[in-house]
Amino acid sequence: MHKTASPTLPAEPPRTGQDRTREILETAARVICRQGYEGASMQAIADACGLTKGGLYHHIQSKEHLLLAIMHYGMDLFEEQVLSQVVGIVDPVERLRECMRRNVRLVTCGASQEVTIILHEHATLTGAGQAAINARKKKYVRFLESAFTEAIAAGRIRAVHPKVAAFSFLGTVLWLYKWYRADGEISAERLEAEMVDLFFGGLRPEEDRCGAA
Amino acid sequence: MHKTASPTLPAEPPRTGQDRTREILETAARVICRQGYEGASMQAIADACGLTKGGLYHHIQSKEHLLLAIMHYGMDLFEEQVLSQVVGIVDPVERLRECMRRNVRLVTCGASQEVTIILHEHATLTGAGQAAINARKKKYVRFLESAFTEAIAAGRIRAVHPKVAAFSFLGTVLWLYKWYRADGEISAERLEAEMVDLFFGGLRPEEDRCGAA
Repeated sequence: MHKTASPTLPAEPPRTGQDRTREILETAARVICRQGYEGASMQAIADACGLTKGGLYHHIQSKEHLLLAIMHYGMDLFEEQVLSQVVGIVDPVERLRECMRRNVRLVTCGASQEVTIILHEHATLTGAGQAAINARKKKYVRFLESAFTEAIAAGRIRAVHPKVAAFSFLGTVLWLYKWYRADGEISAERLEAEMVDLFFGGLRPEEDRCGAA
Repeated sequence: MHKTASPTLPAEPPRTGQDRTREILETAARVICRQGYEGASMQAIADACGLTKGGLYHHIQSKEHLLLAIMHYGMDLFEEQVLSQVVGIVDPVERLRECMRRNVRLVTCGASQEVTIILHEHATLTGAGQAAINARKKKYVRFLESAFTEAIAAGRIRAVHPKVAAFSFLGTVLWLYKWYRADGEISAERLEAEMVDLFFGGLRPEEDRCGAA
């Protein structure tokens, strides 16, 4: 399931029966989102998965390993659906725009929203597991920073601070899971278009831009 | 301590010894941030406050009331240091710019960072307490939406979607507590300036703006 082998993981994630494993991780994520990590018992998670507790422990050796596996799965989904789809785009601004579109889609339309929430909300992990997840998150920040740096060097965008731009991009996109509801007033398609337009097109009216130049 | 009396609160927050109460709420927020809400015992919180468990229960009647009181205190701090300081600014763009500056400062320089984290991270509250906190948060979203709407009507900014703009503003600012470290490479003053410049000034280079007009 994992694209990057990491010696810092406390245990190898399960690699057989990939679809069943994904199903278990998504179900467990939903239970943990609803009941909280401390509140969600392994029995409740097993019940939701249609497994006995022993059956669940056949897939995963402890609750902390389960949390870690959900987070790695969240990073896998992100890398499959977002990062790997855009790294090859030559123009740095189009690379960033397509990256935002795809990341917005993952957060708003994904069947795995709870997995993404757990990935960004839970500080419960410690030690090597936490370090492995942080390293994967940092890879995304560095990707964004270097795309902004490249766009600045090419004169495609203003000389903003690449790190501030990278985290503003992330905050804009990831705050979505805290407020956006697909059944609300803004459709997912409109949201994606409005967000990219706002972030890359800015707030200033055209006349203001030319007058200021 | 609270500016808005709410009939939906499960209990009245303590109103005597305001400074001592604030100190207790800030200390409790630090313990909860470190140990998690489920993991932090009332005994551990009392110890950190230099109180007996009975002494703590003199101030607050249960752990859920403590969590709710921390969240209301976080909203109080926000309203005192941000919202009430900017509502009177006539120009809607300057109102929004100053609002972002002050909110960034609250998140990055505040002595009460853990209070802000708990306000935005904890979904543990339920029922009337959760509804009261959500109502206070919604007031901020509505303030931002109407300032964006006013700025659009006055031709001061482009016709972006006010709700998307409001939540992009919030995501940009509030994601800060997830990544920004005051002892890192970006000073708090620089961060505040860069973030306001990026959000309000946008990414497009001057020549591009005029060419596109």
